[in-house]
Formats: sequence, structure tokens, C-alpha cells
Amino acid sequence: MSTSGAITLDLERRARIGIEEAVLCEGKTPEQVADILARADEAGRSLLLTRLDVEKRDALPAALAERINYEALSRTGVFGTVAAPAGAARVTIVSAGTSDQPVSREAARTLAYHGHAAEEIGDVGVAGLWRLMARLDEIRAFPIVIVAAGMDAALPSVVGGLVPGLVIAVPTSTGYGIAEGGATAMRAMLASCAPGVAVVNIDNGYGAACAALRALGLLAPED
Amino acid sequence: MSTSGAITLDLERRARIGIEEAVLCEGKTPEQVADILARADEAGRSLLLTRLDVEKRDALPAALAERINYEALSRTGVFGTVAAPAGAARVTIVSAGTSDQPVSREAARTLAYHGHAAEEIGDVGVAGLWRLMARLDEIRAFPIVIVAAGMDAALPSVVGGLVPGLVIAVPTSTGYGIAEGGATAMRAMLASCAPGVAVVNIDNGYGAACAALRALGLLAPED
Amino acid sequence: MSTSGAITLDLERRARIGIEEAVLCEGKTPEQVADILARADEAGRSLLLTRLDVEKRDALPAALAERINYEALSRTGVFGTVAAPAGAARVTIVSAGTSDQPVSREAARTLAYHGHAAEEIGDVGVAGLWRLMARLDEIRAFPIVIVAAGMDAALPSVVGGLVPGLVIAVPTSTGYGIAEGGATAMRAMLASCAPGVAVVNIDNGYGAACAALRALGLLAPED
Amino acid sequence: MSTSGAITLDLERRARIGIEEAVLCEGKTPEQVADILARADEAGRSLLLTRLDVEKRDALPAALAERINYEALSRTGVFGTVAAPAGAARVTIVSAGTSDQPVSREAARTLAYHGHAAEEIGDVGVAGLWRLMARLDEIRAFPIVIVAAGMDAALPSVVGGLVPGLVIAVPTSTGYGIAEGGATAMRAMLASCAPGVAVVNIDNGYGAACAALRALGLLAPED
Amino acid sequence: MSTSGAITLDLERRARIGIEEAVLCEGKTPEQVADILARADEAGRSLLLTRLDVEKRDALPAALAERINYEALSRTGVFGTVAAPAGAARVTIVSAGTSDQPVSREAARTLAYHGHAAEEIGDVGVAGLWRLMARLDEIRAFPIVIVAAGMDAALPSVVGGLVPGLVIAVPTSTGYGIAEGGATAMRAMLASCAPGVAVVNIDNGYGAACAALRALGLLAPED
Amino acid sequence: MSTSGAITLDLERRARIGIEEAVLCEGKTPEQVADILARADEAGRSLLLTRLDVEKRDALPAALAERINYEALSRTGVFGTVAAPAGAARVTIVSAGTSDQPVSREAARTLAYHGHAAEEIGDVGVAGLWRLMARLDEIRAFPIVIVAAGMDAALPSVVGGLVPGLVIAVPTSTGYGIAEGGATAMRAMLASCAPGVAVVNIDNGYGAACAALRALGLLAPED
Amino acid sequence: MSTSGAITLDLERRARIGIEEAVLCEGKTPEQVADILARADEAGRSLLLTRLDVEKRDALPAALAERINYEALSRTGVFGTVAAPAGAARVTIVSAGTSDQPVSREAARTLAYHGHAAEEIGDVGVAGLWRLMARLDEIRAFPIVIVAAGMDAALPSVVGGLVPGLVIAVPTSTGYGIAEGGATAMRAMLASCAPGVAVVNIDNGYGAACAALRALGLLAPED
Amino acid sequence: MSTSGAITLDLERRARIGIEEAVLCEGKTPEQVADILARADEAGRSLLLTRLDVEKRDALPAALAERINYEALSRTGVFGTVAAPAGAARVTIVSAGTSDQPVSREAARTLAYHGHAAEEIGDVGVAGLWRLMARLDEIRAFPIVIVAAGMDAALPSVVGGLVPGLVIAVPTSTGYGIAEGGATAMRAMLASCAPGVAVVNIDNGYGAACAALRALGLLAPED
Repeated sequence: MSTSGAITLDLERRARIGIEEAVLCEGKTPEQVADILARADEAGRSLLLTRLDVEKRDALPAALAERINYEALSRTGVFGTVAAPAGAARVTIVSAGTSDQPVSREAARTLAYHGHAAEEIGDVGVAGLWRLMARLDEIRAFPIVIVAAGMDAALPSVVGGLVPGLVIAVPTSTGYGIAEGGATAMRAMLASCAPGVAVVNIDNGYGAACAALRALGLLAPED
Repeated sequence: MSTSGAITLDLERRARIGIEEAVLCEGKTPEQVADILARADEAGRSLLLTRLDVEKRDALPAALAERINYEALSRTGVFGTVAAPAGAARVTIVSAGTSDQPVSREAARTLAYHGHAAEEIGDVGVAGLWRLMARLDEIRAFPIVIVAAGMDAALPSVVGGLVPGLVIAVPTSTGYGIAEGGATAMRAMLASCAPGVAVVNIDNGYGAACAALRALGLLAPED
Repeated sequence: MSTSGAITLDLERRARIGIEEAVLCEGKTPEQVADILARADEAGRSLLLTRLDVEKRDALPAALAERINYEALSRTGVFGTVAAPAGAARVTIVSAGTSDQPVSREAARTLAYHGHAAEEIGDVGVAGLWRLMARLDEIRAFPIVIVAAGMDAALPSVVGGLVPGLVIAVPTSTGYGIAEGGATAMRAMLASCAPGVAVVNIDNGYGAACAALRALGLLAPED
Repeated sequence: MSTSGAITLDLERRARIGIEEAVLCEGKTPEQVADILARADEAGRSLLLTRLDVEKRDALPAALAERINYEALSRTGVFGTVAAPAGAARVTIVSAGTSDQPVSREAARTLAYHGHAAEEIGDVGVAGLWRLMARLDEIRAFPIVIVAAGMDAALPSVVGGLVPGLVIAVPTSTGYGIAEGGATAMRAMLASCAPGVAVVNIDNGYGAACAALRALGLLAPED
Repeated sequence: MSTSGAITLDLERRARIGIEEAVLCEGKTPEQVADILARADEAGRSLLLTRLDVEKRDALPAALAERINYEALSRTGVFGTVAAPAGAARVTIVSAGTSDQPVSREAARTLAYHGHAAEEIGDVGVAGLWRLMARLDEIRAFPIVIVAAGMDAALPSVVGGLVPGLVIAVPTSTGYGIAEGGATAMRAMLASCAPGVAVVNIDNGYGAACAALRALGLLAPED
Repeated sequence: MSTSGAITLDLERRARIGIEEAVLCEGKTPEQVADILARADEAGRSLLLTRLDVEKRDALPAALAERINYEALSRTGVFGTVAAPAGAARVTIVSAGTSDQPVSREAARTLAYHGHAAEEIGDVGVAGLWRLMARLDEIRAFPIVIVAAGMDAALPSVVGGLVPGLVIAVPTSTGYGIAEGGATAMRAMLASCAPGVAVVNIDNGYGAACAALRALGLLAPED
Repeated sequence: MSTSGAITLDLERRARIGIEEAVLCEGKTPEQVADILARADEAGRSLLLTRLDVEKRDALPAALAERINYEALSRTGVFGTVAAPAGAARVTIVSAGTSDQPVSREAARTLAYHGHAAEEIGDVGVAGLWRLMARLDEIRAFPIVIVAAGMDAALPSVVGGLVPGLVIAVPTSTGYGIAEGGATAMRAMLASCAPGVAVVNIDNGYGAACAALRALGLLAPED
Repeated sequence: MSTSGAITLDLERRARIGIEEAVLCEGKTPEQVADILARADEAGRSLLLTRLDVEKRDALPAALAERINYEALSRTGVFGTVAAPAGAARVTIVSAGTSDQPVSREAARTLAYHGHAAEEIGDVGVAGLWRLMARLDEIRAFPIVIVAAGMDAALPSVVGGLVPGLVIAVPTSTGYGIAEGGATAMRAMLASCAPGVAVVNIDNGYGAACAALRALGLLAPED
């Protein structure tokens, strides 16, 4: 048996669609991740790493691991050097509870990797509606709103009925029993009574940020 | 083969648990429904009929059909004579949209059959949150609140976070696609972020009313 | 039992979030639809009607029905008068096959109702990839791309990997067996390997258009 | 990226709906739980902690951990000081088997935290019906009955047909195979042939107790 | 294309396993059913027909249809002549409610077709437990007990805990919403807390009877 | 709104992959089907039509309908003229019961449309294993074996363990209850204990035939 | 809060239904299991323990653990002394592969605990049909046949079509992917094309044996 | 209880269907695997081992373990000696991403064990369509194409529309959330819009290779 070219980085992705390829580390061995990093290093490229557990990070060769800017809550890493975001945030990431913060943070880290600031607004779940209402004017001011919520995911429906901006909902695996690892939140978001709520995969903060990146391309540069 | 006693009415149910037996007409032939009515007639009893389609009602012997007080939206019928509810309503039935009204009405009809008035408050879904807020004080005044909603069922979570009374949530089959005939609403209600929301089966206005009947027994007579 | 205010139109929705309330006619009786139309008429408002079967349209009072601009393929109606869209289309609606056209059309009708032109590009499913490739430059020129597909829903993944604009994917119920009324297409879209594909409910052309309306708000007026 | 106010306690929840906010520790890091406890400490508040594994409890700073009254079977903790329940129990928690006791205990601990005594009646599953019958008069005397059961969840249907009080059913994850982590019990409870059985999420002893707290508010103070 | 021998009756099935082949008419065209009857007629055999709607029966050639002993409730037909059952019933078919009777009857008809009497005991669902208790001694006297129930299917668990005989549970599609066409009843039966309850497919009265036929072979002839 | 080129036939498909495009008529209006036929007619092409109900066929313009060679059992039509298959059959289509014949026939019709004969062998389900054994030598002689079965789909596992040829399994929607429209058969086929059984969608006789067409390309012309 | 009588052994179960109560150890803490054993010891009773992992066995007090006759493959234990089975086996337990042996053994151990011998016949899956055929006469000689199989579970359908005895099918969790922990096997067994196959829960060797115990009661003592 | 012949190797399988029996090590204890190896050793046979974790391999007796040619990525082992593949590869295994390589490798190892070379072509997922297009001519040259993909599994649809060879699709468990362990990929493949794509179980590289082995038998020896 012969094997040819196991790794083929999609280096032109940003030029083509405005989004860099990222590496989903879950489901890959440390050896596979290390190979990918080495390949990127040869090409002089930075890389965004998602779902990189501390254990897997620690299993990488030290020379590679130490060049990763790692954030534990979101399990994201940035390999190589990227410029810090400049300019005011045009995306807000609204989340329902403390358990939704890893997803919120993954979205924020993805946006930062692409040069965009984002404002995280946490702990505004609808069980205490006043918390959301207290920050509504702030949220309404953003043209792009990512909403992360688990369990019943009532938050994006309420937000979607109140703000005119693009609403990107990301279900989280918060909850137990019938919450079923985020499946109920995902279903509720797709069946939202608020018009025009768009949804990405469960716990996919990266994907929500990518949709936001596509939308940021619609804004005038100095919006 | 021999068949003994195909129909055995549970005539002591009200004495035992405070709720009359009702007849779920869906899944029964008109002949079976007619037999049950005849049996009740012999026993001098009234009966609540649920999910009785107009077509099935019309297929009953005229002598029986004309003694049914029928309401088309909820597909409920009352066979025999029952006294009108007396006293102020202590239950409100809050619903999200026009399509949830059949379920809301089934609950109201069931309560009325047992002698209790109820206040229906419709069209207060969270996509237009102001509609709910405008009536919040009114809703908060009821000790028992039934909430009927389909699609994402965000309404009971918002209500549950705002009112101190007993909240009984009934998912409806409103919606399409991933709403899946009410399954998503049911799941979201069970995973509600608002504490203490209790749930009954999809489209089960009758069951929600029965839970309310049990709770009405907790109230002092002149509450 | 008393019933208060069964219908409460959300007349300020457009001012609040830029989208008009629409009436989902499926699951409502002709009487309920007629009541809503009468209420809108009193308020001097137009209304978008979705999932209005020909049979239900014909069951409306003639005086109301004749004021509906009806389109059979998408089962949409516009009650009252709205201005025709002006300006160039900034949204394209790409669909995989002939059976996806009702959904594509519902999206186009919704956009038109809100004053926006859209370009429908049909029959470009990936089983004959050349059909998509032949029109790729055309599609890439739009800032907002709605993609409607059923069955395996491979189309939005391919499109999402090739175009930089906002991609809104709407699964359709096209297909049988394991296609399960669009559930497989919906799942595949949410699990898309292309980054940043945002998804709405099955057959929800209306919802896809509403997400596009939110995104259109991001564009400079003369983009 | 900036992050504002990651934790916002809903300190007015008891005043608003009669139920204190609780902290679901599952899905939170020890650091997040410690932050929440510190915040509560600053506000001079007690807190109920649910689904707190021994391991996570042990990972908290000792100064915080030692102020937690911990109960291992239910994995609940009470941070700070609360008064012991006074008065006779008006809620009973009936459970089917030994494996359902963690859920039963979580409900009892939640009620106690709010000042209400409860009577736990265990091991009365219907496979040995005499066990239930022997205690039926005792159970019937309570105005509020929580029923915890897994597997086929036949217990709440039998209880619901025999007692007039409010029946709150909580499915448990007891069982294997098609019991599917409590999903079958939950479904059976929602489809109960006994009228007016209200259901909460799987293993949600906390939620069942919260529904009971809402119902306790209906009772006259000296009922 | 050539087609050989589209119909091959399994005429030796009774000799092999004690059960005659039956014809499931659902999913077959009237032409296909007629062909099968003609083939049986040639072979001088009788046939049991299940799920034969009145419409399909009426669509058969009159010469064949009039030789069918048809029973509408169970939608079963017997083509040809079979001897009436002789001897006392050793199987009882217990069912929960009126809507379960078609399944109960299908089982009874299948047993009768094979020469065995059966006793149907209906309307003993557990919501009114006294109905079951009143007939318990009678049920306990049968060595083989078929239990048909829909919705939550609590009945076979209660029966299984009280009787020593072989318990064959057949879930029915009675109920709506989460009852899901009998899926919940089936799951609950398989997860029964009563030991040794054996289950067949939803609405499969025929299959329950076939399992009983296998068990009848275990009994001494004059048991 | 503008619509461009709603129908784009993939006329080069046969040259590219050896299979003609077919028209799935389910989910298309008669108008859409007629448009496609007219387009094919202009191009001088024949077309295979699948899932064409008699009602839809009759709703086509007579001038088009009469040019369709229609077969009712499989609901297939051939528009235009195609040569009859020549040469010996190298594909057999084995099916379990009479209800599986529509799927078997759809596969045979699809093969015939592409010029290949096929041998249908029906009614050999494993409940009467001797029926299969009696024809095993015949089946083993074919290099390509399509197996159609519903319910538990045990047939392809038994066949797959006995024959060396390529086994293509097509689940059918035969059965009720937990057979769930073919989902159980599909799952069982994919989990087959026989090695190398390949599976297509439920009721997809067309797809099974297409896989066989791909495999026929592997055979030497005079194999 | 007060807790009364957490453990109530059903000591009369054998007298009532011929089956001893068993203790499902999964989901119970070692402390709970030890309490139950102590209670049984006081009552002078033996106990069958199922799903008792080695780790949990080792966590029991040594004085109790050493009185358990433990079998690792089936994870069963017998606490106390029981007589060895006497007489010839009247039950056979047929299984498809090596991975199904734990379930087969659990059934055999349960039967032995109740005094009945059983014959285990393994590794006769249908992928190599000759293995089954070689032992068919042996299997046909048993009046009661338990069949354990995972994956596609074709084995009970083939057996059910060939033997006249009572067939009790127990799905196992053998397999991966779509085998879904035994769900596919369970579904296939319930949809079996062989008539009268009765099914128990996934991996429930105990339950299959209990059904066999009920059936053994039908046999004449010296059958 | 007695146990006869727990292990029965199907040594004639290759002669019967051209495929050797393989041992699925997952779900077997090390003792069971060792027994099987010893039995094969006695018979002088080699064996293919699949899903053999490093831990289980290390738990085997050293004398057996050292005779296993182990490959860690695919978790496959070959016990005994087999000849290296000879001749040019006639099968290619195309995969979407690095995480799909274990499945691709399992297929390649299975083919090699049976004497057939295979060409693995990785990292050609459709999110970067140019990667597939760059290698399309190469892929089109193979008569048999295995396609491994997870997540949305768009790759086999694109490939199936472009190549004329036999396409065997194997879904992988790559992805998270709604990817559901490969279930979404499997569903999408079965609902593929490309005609004649045949599917095997999730992560079943072994099964895909077995289907390819069946197809290789169709090719002339010197193709």
C-alpha cells in the first residue's frame, strides 16, 4: 500500500473566502497535529487550533508547543504570530450562563485571530430577564450579534425579537437529560419564533465567528 | 373466542382524584364512542369528549350527537348537562400565537367542565416581547399559569422567570420542519432555564387542565 | 371562560428589527386567517402570508381573497399593496434541483415584499458539478448567498468553500427514505466542512430571507 | 477582545418567583464555581449547589469548601448558613428503587434549603405492588407528591390514578439499554394514562422541588 | 428483464414451527392479494389475512372476497374454512382501553385461526387500578397472558409483577404526541421493572398470538 | 425578482459516469415534470422517470403522457425510445416478499433502461429459509446481487455470507411499527454481520441499480 | 427532612410470580449494595446480583464480598448458598459471536440460580450459516430457545423460522456505529419476519432468563 | 450449566465468499482474543484483527503479541504471515481530512491482507475544492473508489458525480455536535444526490474494503 501527501494545507483559503483554515485537534493524534504545525512552519504561516485539550498540547514537541498562545477555557491555540485586533468591536457575543463561556470565548478568539475585536456579554439568560434588559441598548448597537445558549435556548429568540442586527445563534452543550448535549438547544434555535435567526453547529464558537467574518465583509471599512 | 365487558367506565375517578374520566375520541370508531355515551347515559353521567373531529361527531347517532355541546376549535364536546363555572378565574392560560389556541381552548373547556373559570391570554409570544410585558401584571396575579407554545417554546421560560405561581407548560404542534410536531417545544420546556416549570404531553390541553385541577385543590376555597 | 384579545399584531416589528410580521397560514383555520387579514385591513397594513395552500386561499371570503397577490409554487400571498423592488439584486438564491424551487421562491417573495430584488439560480446541484462551476463567477459577485438544497445537502459546503459572501443555507424536504423530510439535509448543513455556513429551519425560505434582510442592513445603501 | 461581567447573580430571584438561584456545577470549572461562591460571599448570600462531584468539591479552595454543607448521595452542597425546615412536611417524595434515591434526595435537599420539610418514601416500585399499597394512605395525605422513577416509569401512572394531590413526576436515568439514560421514563411519564401528571427533566430533583415550591405557595400558611 | 415465481407460499411452515403463514395485506396491492388467494385456493389451503382494510377487501374479486370471513375492528380475514376453537381458553388477552381493542382482537382471531380459544379482558388500564384488581384472580388463572397497552404502557409492568404466567406485551399505537405511534409504549415495555416481560412489535397482535402459540406447545395437551 | 434557467439537464452524465440522469417525480408538480419532458424532447433525449404516480402521469399533457412507457407496480416511466436489453443477465435482484416487489422492479427497470437484463428472484425471505436455499446455486452464479428486504432485513446478511459476488442491499419500507418505514431494515443492513454488504437509501431501487451499473463497468464485455 | 425505609426487599416475589428479586448493581453505590446484602443476610435469604463490576465487588466489605460466588464474564454474583441445578436442560441459549457471551452467561447464571440447567451454544452467527445448520437438530430439541445477538440480529429471525419452541430474543450491544449500542439489533428483532419472536431489553440476559422461567412453569414437571 | 464450543472459526469463509474472517477486538476481553489467536495458531491460519487498542494488544500473552504485525493509526493487527500485495493498485481510498485517516488506513490494511494494493489519497475535502480537482484524473483512473468522510460527507457526492467507477462510501465519526459520531455523514451518503453511491457502516474501513474485495472479483485478472 502506498500513501501520498497525507496533509494538504488549504493555504489560499483566506484569499478565496476571507477565512483562514483552522485545525480541529479533537480526533487527531498529537503526531498528526505536530505534522500539521511543522508543515505550516515550513510555509511561514500561522495557524488557529481549536479543541486542543491541555493534555494534547502537552504531548506536542516542546519546540512547537511553546510557540502556541494557548487559552484554556476555550481550548484554543494560536501557533505563530498574529497582530492584535485593531479598531472598535463590531461583533458582540452574548451568552446565557457561565457554562456557555467556553463557546463564547472560542468565537472571540477566532475573531481576534482574524484581526477583529469582539465584546463578550455573559450571564444574561432569560430566567432573569432583567439582566438582558439592562444591557439591551448596548447589544442593539452592534451590527452583528452572536448568541450562545444551551438548555432551552430561549435567549436567541428573545434577542432576535429585539435587535435589528444579524443574529448568529450557537447552541451549547450546557444542560443534562433532555438537553441532550445541545441537541435541544439547536432544535429550538432552528425553530425560533424570532425571524431570521441563523444557526451553526453545537458548541461551534469557531463556526459562529466564521459566519460573523463573512458578515463583517459586508460592512463598510469604517462602519 | 369470548369477550367480556369491553367498556368499564371509571365512575369513581372524581371521588378518588378530583378529576372526571374523559373520552379520547381519536383512535376510537364512532361505534365505540356511541357505546360509551350510551353507557354513560344509562349511569346518568355527563362526559367530556376530547379530540372529537367534526366528522366523527357527525357519524354518531343523531339522538346522542344532539346532546353534545360541541366546540369546534378545540374539538371538545360535553355530553349531558354541567353547571357553568362560578367564581373568579384562578387559572390563566397564556399562549404564544393564534395556532396555539386549540390547545388553550381545550384546557379552558376542561376546566369549565369541572366548574372552574379560566382566563385565556393569547398572542403573547416572545418574538414581540412587549406583548407579554404589557400583560405581565395581569398574569402574575394568577396563582396557576398554563403556558401553551410551539416551535422553540421560549415563552414558558420567560414566564417562569417572571411569575411566582405554578407554571404548567403544554407544548403544541405549531411549526414545521425541526419543530417536529411539537417535539422540539416539549424538549425545550423540559430543559427550561427557568426553575420549576412542569410539562405535559404535546397538544395536551386536557392534561394541563387536569394538573391545574390538582393544584386548585391546594387553594383555600375562597382564595 | 373568557377570552381576551385573541389576535395581537406586532405592528412595530419592522421599526424594531427591520422585518415585517408574516402570517404562517399552516395550522390556522380559514376563519383565523380571515380575522387576521381583517385586523390588518383596519390598521391599513399589508401582510405577507406563507404556507397558504390554494384550498385555504379559496376558503377565504372573496372580498379578502381577491386582494391577495398569490404565487402557487411558493404558496405565498401578499395582502395589500407593496412597491416593487428597486435597485440591483444583492442577494442570490442558489438551489440544487427543481424540487427545491418552492423554497427558493418563498425566499425571493419575502425579499421582494421587503423591497429587495433577488436572483434565483436553480438546478446547480453537485451531482453535475459543471453546472455550478459554469455560474460560479456570477454567484461570487453577490455579497449574500442563500443556498437551498435537500437530500445530502452537499451544495452549501461546496459553495461555502468557494465564495466569500455570507452563506445562508436552507435545507429542503426534497428526497425520501433517510432524507427524512429534510432532517438529513439540515444536519449535514450544520456539520458542514465549509467554515461559517449559517442554517435555518427546513423548507424555511421565509427565514432564510429574514436572515438576509438582517445582513442587507449591514451593507452601505449604495453598496 | 474584552470581557465584561462574566458572573451576574440573580439575587432578586426569590423575591420575584419564590425560588433562590442555584448553581449547576456540572459543566463549570472549579475556578468558575469558586468565583461564584466568592461573589455570593461578598453579597452575604447563601447558595445551593447541585451536581457538585466530590472531586470538584475537593478542587475548590479549602476556605470555601469547608463552608459547604455537602451531601454525597445527591451531590448537593449548601454554601453558607440556612435555617432548618420548620413545620410538618407537606411534600412527599416517592421513589421506585434504591437507584432513584440520589434524585429523591436532591429534591429533599432543595426543599430543605428553602425551609420546607419533605418525607421521602423509597422502594415502592410497582413490580411489587404491595409495597406501594402498604403506604398508600400515607401518600394520599400529602397535598403535593413528587414521584421519581426510571426504566418504564409505571409508578407515577399508578400513583396519579390513586391520589388527588398535585403529582410532579421526575424521570431518573436508572436502567440500561432502551431505558436510554431516562429518556424512556420521561416519555412514559409524559404519555401517562393518569390525568394531570406534570413532568420535569431527567434526574432533575432540583426542578421537581422548584415546581413543588411554586405549589407550596398555593397552600394556606397553616394548611 | 425476466421475473420468476413472484409468489412462493411457505406451505410447510405449520409443520416446521407450528404456525401458519399469514398474509400482511398492508403494502400489497389488491392484485397481489388476489394472486396469493388464488394460489392458496389451488393448493387447497386456508389463509389468515391481517391488516386488510375494508377498502382493499372490497377491491378484491367478489368470488374471492365472499369466501373471506372478515372482522372489521381487527381488520383480519380468514380465507377458506377453519374449525372453531375447541376446549377451554388457556390464553387471556388483557388490554388497557377501548382503543387497544383492535390489537387485542387481532391476537384473538389469530389464536382462533390456529384452533385455540382466548379470553379478552378489556378496559383495565392502571389509571383506575381497581378495574384490574377486580379481575386479577381471573387473570392469574391463565398460564399465558397477552397484555396490550399504548401510551405509557404501565399495565404490563403491574400485571408482570402480579402473575406467574408467561407475559407477552404488545404495545399499541394508542395515544398522541410523545406516545409517538406506540414507540413510547414499546420502549417502556422493554424497560419494564417487572421481570421477564417479553415484547413484540407495535400493534402486532398477530405476533403476540404467534408467541403464545409457541408457548401453548409447551403445555401438556390437557393442561 | 428574476429567475434564470430553472431547468438544466445534465445531458453529459452518461458520458461522464455511465449513468443517465433520471427524474424523481415525487415532489415535483405535473407542470414541472412536463417542462422537463419538453426540454428532453427538444434535445432528442429519452428520460427515465421514477416515483411517478398514476395520478401525476394522468395529469401530464396527453401528447407527452402517451409517449411514456409506464409500469405501475414500480411507478416508473420511460419517455422516448430505448433499445431492449441484449445479452444474458449478469445481475440478479433477490427480494424477501411480495411487498418488496415494487423496489425490485424499479431496479430492474433502471437496468433495462441502460441496456442490461436482470433476473428477479422474489419471495425468498429467511422466515422460510428453504425457499432461499432452493435457489442458492442460481443466485451464486451472478457476479452482482441486489437484495431488497424490509422489516428486519435478515436476508442480505444470510445472502452475503453465502455468495462471493458484489452484494448491494436496498432496504424497503415494508413493515409497520418499529420497522419505521424502512429505517430498521436500513440500519440492520449497515450493521450486517456479513462482510462487505453495501447499502443504498430506503426503497431506492433506482440507486441500487445505479451501483450495479457502476459494477457492470468492471466486468469484461463478454464476461 | 426525614427518610423512612430506604430498602424494602420484595421477599414474596418468588411465591407470587416464581422469580426471585435480583439486585441491579449498576447505578448503586457500594454502600447501597452492602446495605441490601446485610438486609438479605438478616432475612436469611440468598440474592442474585447483576451488573456487578469487579471494582464494585472489591469495594464491598470483605465479610460480604467473600460470600459472593462471582463470575467475571457475566458480572453476576450469587450471595449466599443455592442448590446446583438438577435435571436435564430444557432451555438453550444460542448466541451469534464471542462478544455476545457475557449476555448468554448472564442468562445461564440466572437460570441456574433458580435451579434450572441451560445449554449455551455460541458462535453460530448467520454470516457462516453452516455453523448454525450443524447444530440445528440439537437446538430444535429444546422447548425454550433464548437467542442473543447484536449488530443486525439476523440470527433470531433465522432460528425463529426453523424451530417450533418459544423463542426469546435478547439484543446485545455488540457492534459499533449504526449498531448503536444494541438499538439496531433490538429494532430488527422486534420487526422480525419470523412469527412469534418475543424480545427483551438490550443486554438483558437476566430478563430473557426470567421470561424463560415463566415459560418453564408451563412445562409438565418431567416434560 | 454447560457450555459447548465457545469459539467456532469460519475457516471456509474465503473459499465461500472470497473474504477471510476477521476478529473485531472491541467488545472482547484480552482472554477471548488470546483464545481465538491460539485456535487460529492450531489451525495454522493467519488472522486479521480490527479495532485492537494498544492497551488490549499489550494485555495479550507476549508470545502471541509479538507475532502480530500492528499498525497503530488504524488499530489493526495481522497475526501470522501473509504475502505482500503484488501488482498495481486497482482501488483508491480517497479521504476528506487528517481525522479520516484511521478509517482509510483500516481499509488499506484489509485490502493488503487479502493481497491487494491500494492507493490512499488524503486531505481532499470539498471545503477546498481545488485539492480534489488537482487529483481528479488520478482518481478517475481507478475502477474502484472508496471515499471516507465525516461531518457533512459532501465528498462522496462530488466524487460520485465525477467518476464512473464503483463508489463505496464509508462515513467516519469525524466531527462533533450534530455530526453525532458519524450518523450525519452516514445519512448524507445514503441520501446522496450522486447516483449509485453504496454505503457501509460508520468508521467501517474493514467493511468498505470487503465490498471492494467483492468488486475486485468482477475484474479480469489483468484488468
